[in-house]
Amino acid sequence: MTTQKARIEPNQETKVQSVHRRLSELAHQSGPDAKLPTVSELCLSFGTSRSTINDALEQLEAQEVIRRRRGSGIFVSPKITNRSIALLFRVDFFRERVASPFWDILWSKFILAAQARSEIRSDSFTVHILHAKDGRLQALDDHLTRLIETGRISGVLGVGLELETVEWIRGQGVPVIGFAGLGQWHVVISGEEIVRLAAKHLIERGCKRPRLWIAGHYVHIVDWRNPAIKQEASLDRDVEAFREVLEASHLPFQADRVWSYAQQMDPPLLQEQGAWAAERLLNEGLAEETDGLILTNDLMALGAMKVLQRSAAGRKIQVATHANKGAATLYAFDDVLTQVLVDPEEIVRAMFQLLDAVMAGKQPEKDFVTIGPSSLTLPMKASR
Amino acid sequence: MTTQKARIEPNQETKVQSVHRRLSELAHQSGPDAKLPTVSELCLSFGTSRSTINDALEQLEAQEVIRRRRGSGIFVSPKITNRSIALLFRVDFFRERVASPFWDILWSKFILAAQARSEIRSDSFTVHILHAKDGRLQALDDHLTRLIETGRISGVLGVGLELETVEWIRGQGVPVIGFAGLGQWHVVISGEEIVRLAAKHLIERGCKRPRLWIAGHYVHIVDWRNPAIKQEASLDRDVEAFREVLEASHLPFQADRVWSYAQQMDPPLLQEQGAWAAERLLNEGLAEETDGLILTNDLMALGAMKVLQRSAAGRKIQVATHANKGAATLYAFDDVLTQVLVDPEEIVRAMFQLLDAVMAGKQPEKDFVTIGPSSLTLPMKASR
Repeated sequence: MTTQKARIEPNQETKVQSVHRRLSELAHQSGPDAKLPTVSELCLSFGTSRSTINDALEQLEAQEVIRRRRGSGIFVSPKITNRSIALLFRVDFFRERVASPFWDILWSKFILAAQARSEIRSDSFTVHILHAKDGRLQALDDHLTRLIETGRISGVLGVGLELETVEWIRGQGVPVIGFAGLGQWHVVISGEEIVRLAAKHLIERGCKRPRLWIAGHYVHIVDWRNPAIKQEASLDRDVEAFREVLEASHLPFQADRVWSYAQQMDPPLLQEQGAWAAERLLNEGLAEETDGLILTNDLMALGAMKVLQRSAAGRKIQVATHANKGAATLYAFDDVLTQVLVDPEEIVRAMFQLLDAVMAGKQPEKDFVTIGPSSLTLPMKASR
Repeated sequence: MTTQKARIEPNQETKVQSVHRRLSELAHQSGPDAKLPTVSELCLSFGTSRSTINDALEQLEAQEVIRRRRGSGIFVSPKITNRSIALLFRVDFFRERVASPFWDILWSKFILAAQARSEIRSDSFTVHILHAKDGRLQALDDHLTRLIETGRISGVLGVGLELETVEWIRGQGVPVIGFAGLGQWHVVISGEEIVRLAAKHLIERGCKRPRLWIAGHYVHIVDWRNPAIKQEASLDRDVEAFREVLEASHLPFQADRVWSYAQQMDPPLLQEQGAWAAERLLNEGLAEETDGLILTNDLMALGAMKVLQRSAAGRKIQVATHANKGAATLYAFDDVLTQVLVDPEEIVRAMFQLLDAVMAGKQPEKDFVTIGPSSLTLPMKASR
């Protein structure tokens, strides 16, 4: 184990990183084969030393952004638009214990996006699986390490990365966009917006006494070390959103109507969390005083619906849940459920957009981009 | 498009391939760093020319099975157990139109198997996504082509490969094991055994008038060109198995009780095939004279159960279906369904086993290995 630094600071660049970013921006503005200023001119205009300029130029040459020709100067590489992008995907997200269609859909959207890009530009795209043991990422393998060290990767999309890996990649001058883990910049799903939309919708349809059930996930990578992201991903915001919507409609908020497995270290399968919660609701006679249910996970909803739909009291409860676009998970209940759909394709698109911007030398305004619900599917197959 | 050869003949080796296989076997038997016979001795014992021996040795050296040291002879490579295995996975299997949890589970089982192997031996494992357009594979990319050409891949596991690719890889002296497409050797799922087990089980539980519904899949790679495989994968065998089980129990077989989308070019989503078939059954008053239903696909079963479970007549029908171990697809109906489970992990295991055998110089007895059901899950959560 290496010593861990206190937090990641994406916006505090070193001198070389700053020159690298500005030179990359200049190269992209100038276009393939354009001649760039000399090293002496760059020293003057950036107000920095020859060695800083040379370090940045070396990285940019390895990344095929520029070419130095002895005696004739520095040129933008003709390959400047041919990027080599690496997807680093953490393997334990596929493990049976946490198997969710979400990771599989996300995975396939990456592959399809890469194919679409390769058809319109000459980017190459390589896929690397990161191994994990006991919930911790293992070191990158030699092949991948060498690819990054020798500048043959222009940018990284990372799913489930931890601090050490991000810092190392970043130290090699390669930008990293993260999801479900760290990155120099991140994409996060807004659980808050999902809860807000679901709650509003139930109240519009007449619910006065809804409950909120929050799924407990096995993998907690929320050792984020970035307070902004940590807060963004926090479950407290889901509860807060629920409270706000209730209060805006002059309905009382009661903390004991929010139920969650989230604080447990080793929660049961998501569908069982839903089934057990529904059984408890029915057995403890709470179904009569519950007219709505908001669920934050589609597998949890599957378990809850299995139990609720077989009971007369359960069938009276209106249920709204998070769901993933493209998953068949809730097909059997799509005529009785309200589904707040998140489109995994939007996560992939946002990650590519962030990476494209950074590779073109732009500095994103915020450390992270949030993805909210993309659509709502109502019971009886009506949709708005 | 290159001209296509009539069929693939895995057992007709060229002279070089035969020498390559036998030398590889010898190297594995002798172990790392062992000294092998001289070229002259090999010519004598294999009864072949120096140029054939040298061609085979060149391939084996590139694959790091042997090392030639000038002046001192031919030695088994110390790296003989460090294999570099490539997984080639066809991208259109992930496309929305055919999205099935099966491909995702299969994919994750490959990744987990690779991780397990890397922990006990020093094999490396790379993942390559093969692009497809309009249902045809596109050419391998330059990077992968170069890896194979320069002998840096010891063996290939291919999912969804077509003839040209297999022949080219094989021509480079690299063995290819295929699934859901071609390979030098294949792994296939036995639909026949699934139907047989499901039918037997329903009849044991008192069904006298079962029906068989065969799912229609979008992707037909059954342009196999290998008659043995084509026959093995044929739907006729599913029907034949159904007939055999009925007749063994002295029950009549009627062709019009078998129903299938299989002959259509562009079938609807699998779950819709199931829902529509169930609706037709109920609407046409056929539910009364149907006491059992055998389904060949889990998503099709999901659609059928959604409809059948909401009708009193439908709930009386006993349903047995194929299902994939590890999928949550049928969770909502697992207390009323009989599930004949296929374990995608077995496919992966069989592919690795075939490849290991071939890389160690052994010649598999058959062109293909069939995978049958791994277990049966009965209604009411009892299992045998």
